[in-house]
Amino acid sequence: MNVTKVRSSTNTYKVYIGEGLLEDLKSYLPKKYTSIMIVTDSMAGSYYLDKAKKGLAGEKVVATTIPAGEKSKSIQTFYNLHTDALNYGLDRQSLILALGGGVVGDLAGFVAATYMRGIDFIQVPTTILAHDSSVGGKVAINHEQGKNMIGSFYPPINVVYDVSTLFTLERKEIRSGYAEIAKEALIADRIFFQSLMEIDLFDLSNDQLASQIGRGVEIKASIVEADERESGVRKHLNFGHTLGHALESMLGYGEWTHGELVAIGMLFALRVSEDVFGTTLPYTQLHSWLRKNDYPLNLPDFEVQQIIEKMKIDKKTIGRSIQMVLLRDVGAPVTVQVDDNDMVRYLKSFMNDLKKI
Amino acid sequence: MNVTKVRSSTNTYKVYIGEGLLEDLKSYLPKKYTSIMIVTDSMAGSYYLDKAKKGLAGEKVVATTIPAGEKSKSIQTFYNLHTDALNYGLDRQSLILALGGGVVGDLAGFVAATYMRGIDFIQVPTTILAHDSSVGGKVAINHEQGKNMIGSFYPPINVVYDVSTLFTLERKEIRSGYAEIAKEALIADRIFFQSLMEIDLFDLSNDQLASQIGRGVEIKASIVEADERESGVRKHLNFGHTLGHALESMLGYGEWTHGELVAIGMLFALRVSEDVFGTTLPYTQLHSWLRKNDYPLNLPDFEVQQIIEKMKIDKKTIGRSIQMVLLRDVGAPVTVQVDDNDMVRYLKSFMNDLKKI
Repeated sequence: MNVTKVRSSTNTYKVYIGEGLLEDLKSYLPKKYTSIMIVTDSMAGSYYLDKAKKGLAGEKVVATTIPAGEKSKSIQTFYNLHTDALNYGLDRQSLILALGGGVVGDLAGFVAATYMRGIDFIQVPTTILAHDSSVGGKVAINHEQGKNMIGSFYPPINVVYDVSTLFTLERKEIRSGYAEIAKEALIADRIFFQSLMEIDLFDLSNDQLASQIGRGVEIKASIVEADERESGVRKHLNFGHTLGHALESMLGYGEWTHGELVAIGMLFALRVSEDVFGTTLPYTQLHSWLRKNDYPLNLPDFEVQQIIEKMKIDKKTIGRSIQMVLLRDVGAPVTVQVDDNDMVRYLKSFMNDLKKI
Repeated sequence: MNVTKVRSSTNTYKVYIGEGLLEDLKSYLPKKYTSIMIVTDSMAGSYYLDKAKKGLAGEKVVATTIPAGEKSKSIQTFYNLHTDALNYGLDRQSLILALGGGVVGDLAGFVAATYMRGIDFIQVPTTILAHDSSVGGKVAINHEQGKNMIGSFYPPINVVYDVSTLFTLERKEIRSGYAEIAKEALIADRIFFQSLMEIDLFDLSNDQLASQIGRGVEIKASIVEADERESGVRKHLNFGHTLGHALESMLGYGEWTHGELVAIGMLFALRVSEDVFGTTLPYTQLHSWLRKNDYPLNLPDFEVQQIIEKMKIDKKTIGRSIQMVLLRDVGAPVTVQVDDNDMVRYLKSFMNDLKKI
C-alpha cells in the first residue's frame, strides 16, 4: 500500500492507495461517528455501494445516490443532499463518505463543508481522475456560468483509494484520469513524463496504476502543502485548464470528459509556451501519445471570441485579464498574463493546427 | 471610537464601533480591491446605501439589494447573489461588503465564503442584533428544516459599526438586539446584567448604545477566540436559543423577531436551570424587564412534542439528544443533556407559567 501524508492548514490527512481497501473500509475511520452518510452516484454505487457498506459493518450507515455526471454538481443536488442529511438525522459528530469520482467528491465534500458549518468527510475515489480532486481540499459545485464557482477549501479526514475499483472504468474515463497525471508530470517531473509517454493506457497493470497514481498524488500533495489557498504555486495545477474549462463549459459538461478537454488545453498551453518563451516543448510527443490512446481532438468550430469570454470567468482571472499557466520547460511552470489580442492569435492558430493533423 | 480585536484561526480582525463611520468607510479597507460588491436589503439600503457609496468614493463599487427579512436567507437568494457577483465580474481580489442586519451579514458572508472558494468580506451592521452575528465568523443560510443549517466558519476582514445607523430601528428591532446583549450579560457578567435591567430600551443615549454594544462584542469576542468552531465554550452563546430557534422555525421567521424569541428561550432556560441545579436565578427580574420593554410573551398554543422535534434538529444536538445551555449561576453557563421526558415536563410547566402572568 502506498501512503502519502498531506498537511493542510487545519489537519494532516493520509491518502491510502492499494488493492481491496474497500473491504476493510472501517479501519480507515479515525474515530467513532454517530452516523455515516455515504454519497455515491448511480454508476459507482451500482458497483461499490454494497462493498462499502460491508466494509463499514457495525457502523450506522445510510446512503444516498445521485445521478452520475457533471450535472449533479448543481445547487439543486447540493440542497437535496442537505435535506437527506437532515432527514437521516446527521449531527456534527457524523461523517460524510464520498464514494465515486470527482463529481461525487466535490459535491459531497462541499455538503460536508457546509452541513451545520462543517462535518468530517472521507474521500473514497473510484476513478483515476479523482486522484486529483480528492487531494487538496478543493470542494465545489458549478454555477450555470462556470465550473466550481461556488465552493470552499475543506480538506478530507482521509482519502481511501482502492485501485481495484478502477477496472470497471470506461476507456474515456481512463483517458480523463491520465490527462491529469500527464499534467502533474509536465509541471513537476520530466522523467515521470517520459515514462508516461511510453505506456498504453488500455494495457495497464495493477502495479503501474498504483505507482503512477501514487506519483501523481505526491506531486499534487507537495504543491497544495506549499499553497493551500491557491495564491501562488497551486495555480500551476491549472496547467491546461484555462482552455480546458472554457471548452468544458461550452460543451455543456458530460459529452467530453474533463481530462480529454484538459489534454487539448495542455497542447494549447504548450504551443503558447513555445511562442512566449521561444523554446521547444514536447508538443508533438504529447500529441502523438494522445492520438495513440484515442483522445478525441476534433473540436467543433467555436468562435474564438466566445472561448475568450469563457476563459475570462475562470477563477484565476484578475480584473478581466486572462492568466494562463505556461511552461518555461517541462517541470518549470509559470503563471503569465496573456492579453486579448495575443489570445485571439494563439487560439486561431492552434485551432487550425488541431484540424490539420 | 471603541475598537475590539478578534483573533480567528485564519486572521485577526477589528470591530470598530462609533458614530459616523460610514462617511469614511474607505479608510477601513485593509487593501486595494479590484471591485467591491455591497450587499444590502431593501430596508437598510434605503437608508444607508448612498451614504456607504459616498464613503467608498473612488473605488469601483456595485450594489445588489435583497428583500428585507429572514426569507432572504434562502438557497435561491444565495445562488442569485453568486450570479450577481459573476455578472459584475468579481474576481478573487474583490470584496463583498455586507450592509445591513444579521440576515444580510450571514447571507453575504456565506456568499463571500464560497464565491470562487472564498473572497474577503467586511461586515457593516446596521442593527443592534447584528453586533452578535457580525462577530465570530459564523455565516449561513437557512434550510427549510432549520435555521443556519447550511454555512461555514468564515471570519470577516473587518467589522465597521456605525451606531448612527441604529436610530432608524423599529422598536421590535431594538428589543431583538438587546435580548442578545442580555444573553451575553447572563452568561458572562453579572454586573453588566444588573446594569442592563435598569435601562429603558426606548430611551437610550448614544453613549449607552456604543458602550453596551461594545461590552456585548467584547464578551462575544473572548468566547469565539477561545473556541472558534463551537466544540466547547462557544456553545454557551446558544443560551436561550434551543427553545428560541425551535419557536422561530415554527413561527416561520419574520413575524416575531429573533431576539424576542430568544428572550422567551432565556426565561425557559432560567427555569430549567433553577430546577436542574436547585438554585434561584433572576427569572422574575428578567421577566419584569421584558414586560416593561414590551417584549411579546404570548406564544400561540404549540404541541410540546412538536417543539421537541424542532429542538432536535438544532445543530448542537448529538445523536438525537437535546443539548441545552443552562446557568449554574449568572456568569456560569454549562451545556447539559436534557432527556425527552424531562423536556416535556419543563415545557408544559413553562408554557403554563407564561400564560398565567
